[in-house]
Amino acid sequence: MNVEFINPFLASLMNVLSTMAQTELKPGKPQRKQGEVAQGDVSGLIGMVGAQTKGSFSITFDEGLALTIMERMLGERPSSINEEVTDMVGEITNMVTGGAKNLLGEKGYEFDMATPIVVSGSNHTITHKCDGPKVLIPFTSDAGNANIEVCFDKI
Amino acid sequence: MNVEFINPFLASLMNVLSTMAQTELKPGKPQRKQGEVAQGDVSGLIGMVGAQTKGSFSITFDEGLALTIMERMLGERPSSINEEVTDMVGEITNMVTGGAKNLLGEKGYEFDMATPIVVSGSNHTITHKCDGPKVLIPFTSDAGNANIEVCFDKI
Repeated sequence: MNVEFINPFLASLMNVLSTMAQTELKPGKPQRKQGEVAQGDVSGLIGMVGAQTKGSFSITFDEGLALTIMERMLGERPSSINEEVTDMVGEITNMVTGGAKNLLGEKGYEFDMATPIVVSGSNHTITHKCDGPKVLIPFTSDAGNANIEVCFDKI
Repeated sequence: MNVEFINPFLASLMNVLSTMAQTELKPGKPQRKQGEVAQGDVSGLIGMVGAQTKGSFSITFDEGLALTIMERMLGERPSSINEEVTDMVGEITNMVTGGAKNLLGEKGYEFDMATPIVVSGSNHTITHKCDGPKVLIPFTSDAGNANIEVCFDKI
């Protein structure tokens, strides 16, 4: 997988959080994920299926960042990761993947998205099981950390 | 969603675990998932995309059951949920969904599968974010508990 497939997810995430929640994420260096695990408290995951390939995308937030995004969107800070927060994480997962889908579609890479799944639990870890390399991008912000992972078969 | 869409996943799971790991699962009553959450220690998740619908499937194991399945398949019990265990959970997720895909295809419901994602972490919870009802089936066995959840948009 080359950077052409990762940058649309990065750009889409930064755009979504900036627009929806006035939160500026600073991307770190994209890295091939190997043994190390990225941990977080709430994650949105989604499957992607196209004629050329299939794969999966995930975005993982620290609890503090997820709660701050809710606060900036709705004006009120939840006390913990409740159903409203998981709905928001599912919606962000859809929007980020949808934005990346549009950008990749312009380049001739088409895929359809499944429906998102949200995982909550302190310090859970996510492992994408696909044949291609797994690419992780860490993000920092004024309100906490996030990371995304993308993996496609056979690109 | 009616039972016609759930039973293929139930039958496929029982077949996979019986064949691969000589483990007989006893299904409980399928239930519409509402407020309550099913918790577990390691889960396999996968997205599904078809012309008629899209959705997601998950299977969640207690740590003890996941380790016992490994022991029965490989003759050695891992001391914790390591990469071999998450590989096995990803493979079971693929096999169960592939089996259900075949059964549903015979009835005229076609979908393609994304690649699986495995989540590990004590007592994590999974929330499928799709428009249709979420159906959960709990399973018990001699080695611990599991549950599956299936959700499709617009059936």
